[in-house]
Amino acid sequence: MIDQRLLPHNFQIVSFKTTEEVAESIRNMTVRGAPAIGVAAAYGMALAGMQRRSAEAAAKLLKSARPTAYDLFYAVDFMSERLKAGESGKAASERYARTIIEKCRLIGEHGAALIPDNSKIMTHCNAGALATVDFGTALAPIRLAHKQGKRIFVYVSETRPRLQGMKLTAYELRNEGIPHAIIADGASGHFLRKGVDLVIVGADRVAMNGDFVNKIGTYEKAVLAKELGVPFYVAAPISTFDFSTESGGDIVIEDRAEEEVTTLDGVRIAPEGCRALNPSFDMTPSRYVAGFITEVGVLRPEEIVRVKGARI
Amino acid sequence: MIDQRLLPHNFQIVSFKTTEEVAESIRNMTVRGAPAIGVAAAYGMALAGMQRRSAEAAAKLLKSARPTAYDLFYAVDFMSERLKAGESGKAASERYARTIIEKCRLIGEHGAALIPDNSKIMTHCNAGALATVDFGTALAPIRLAHKQGKRIFVYVSETRPRLQGMKLTAYELRNEGIPHAIIADGASGHFLRKGVDLVIVGADRVAMNGDFVNKIGTYEKAVLAKELGVPFYVAAPISTFDFSTESGGDIVIEDRAEEEVTTLDGVRIAPEGCRALNPSFDMTPSRYVAGFITEVGVLRPEEIVRVKGARI
Repeated sequence: MIDQRLLPHNFQIVSFKTTEEVAESIRNMTVRGAPAIGVAAAYGMALAGMQRRSAEAAAKLLKSARPTAYDLFYAVDFMSERLKAGESGKAASERYARTIIEKCRLIGEHGAALIPDNSKIMTHCNAGALATVDFGTALAPIRLAHKQGKRIFVYVSETRPRLQGMKLTAYELRNEGIPHAIIADGASGHFLRKGVDLVIVGADRVAMNGDFVNKIGTYEKAVLAKELGVPFYVAAPISTFDFSTESGGDIVIEDRAEEEVTTLDGVRIAPEGCRALNPSFDMTPSRYVAGFITEVGVLRPEEIVRVKGARI
Repeated sequence: MIDQRLLPHNFQIVSFKTTEEVAESIRNMTVRGAPAIGVAAAYGMALAGMQRRSAEAAAKLLKSARPTAYDLFYAVDFMSERLKAGESGKAASERYARTIIEKCRLIGEHGAALIPDNSKIMTHCNAGALATVDFGTALAPIRLAHKQGKRIFVYVSETRPRLQGMKLTAYELRNEGIPHAIIADGASGHFLRKGVDLVIVGADRVAMNGDFVNKIGTYEKAVLAKELGVPFYVAAPISTFDFSTESGGDIVIEDRAEEEVTTLDGVRIAPEGCRALNPSFDMTPSRYVAGFITEVGVLRPEEIVRVKGARI
């Protein structure tokens, strides 16, 4: 996998040979982005299968790596079932990865139809190819709209503390020649009021009622978009939908180390002795969402229940 | 003056002997914060007076240093009048500085009454002693409430791109032993929903109808506070009120260099070839403001007109 912690200045592929190494790569964010975490976990399960180690122990280890992204749990459960059914771990995990790529491609098709020519789009964090193996969730419609020749401009909020918007989304957009500008997270409201046609973000977990959890800073954009009449879309494959969770309040929000806020690239920027709080995600109630862009089409929050039980 | 660009890791006093140097110190943000910029400009005018140089030229130079903070224009006009009336520049500028300090002390008294015991407060950027010579605007009520023995906790949003919240406000609060935590700007909505009793921010310019301009990221907090029913206060002396501007749309918003976003401490953090947009301020319509905490008391937006013509 690409070591995403080193981007954009250093592109490095790293290889792992054990489930433990894969779990650690999820925990330390070598790989991040809900669908990409799911694919990494699928390969982590495959490694356990190939090494004739306990699938139960591998599942437990992988599921403990990070708490919020639902794809992790979805992929591990998918692989546990396939291994139990006697399928080869390698074949099942590669099928999982290919399926996620295809879902993202379809998200691009359904989402691009929502993007008018000559439009300004805002996104947050990175829900691009890096987060999903290919195409992206939020970035898939943006990529396809650009490819279709639509004139678009993307506001990329930098996404403190880890700056995935600046370091990963701007990197992907630059690589594809899609016009964009990085903005401070606090400038989102200013630019939404100046004129944005739609907001598209990814998701780490969607509850059955359409509440969803995504990178910290998402909730603010959703409230501002509603206040300003800007449609707010969430792009995610069904593997991110947690049908066992009724509403967003039940989703565990990961608190990460305060040093992600108080230091940058290992250098302390905060005054000595000051503490920080670092919730990695926030929860956005479904009433702020215009639609969920999925592989089966654009769903209103109340339509989510229809795709319950959809499987890879 | 304190070189605020070096805080919190390096406390250094710098001295200037000419109006040109003072204007440059405002431009390069050695001094920042609307009331402190005003005081610096008053001393800049005094230097012109002491050196028997043209007050008109000094006024023009100082006013061109930065476009948004109204105190700059207010202080220069005050000094021009006093010099024209034959008052010593030194005496007039020191009176200006003492008056600003006293106004901030009064803002603290009026504002502390709004802070209940056992409360959580959110602020943005730095509207502390550093921004105002002493006490602060937004921080004056917080300081006094703490001194009165009220148990308070302050959420300090870091305020990208220049991190004045993290580097200056957290520094001031730490120095006074006021409990606080630094948060990413994008986490403001998350914590406002978790439970904040009031938001207090400063202002760079207030229009007659109560629209106001403050550090980028302020507007977002105001909208979120309204949505969540959290009272949102603006603390500012009358020197920040621009009675010649009817509404916020007429206020010039300074765009600063994109390197403030794409680099940190001189090191590039954005991908090469990516651009950024860096508006330094945003405008918040008056309908989001519960009250303006001033030296004459707490004013509702529609009461601002009453203090028109108040002078130092």
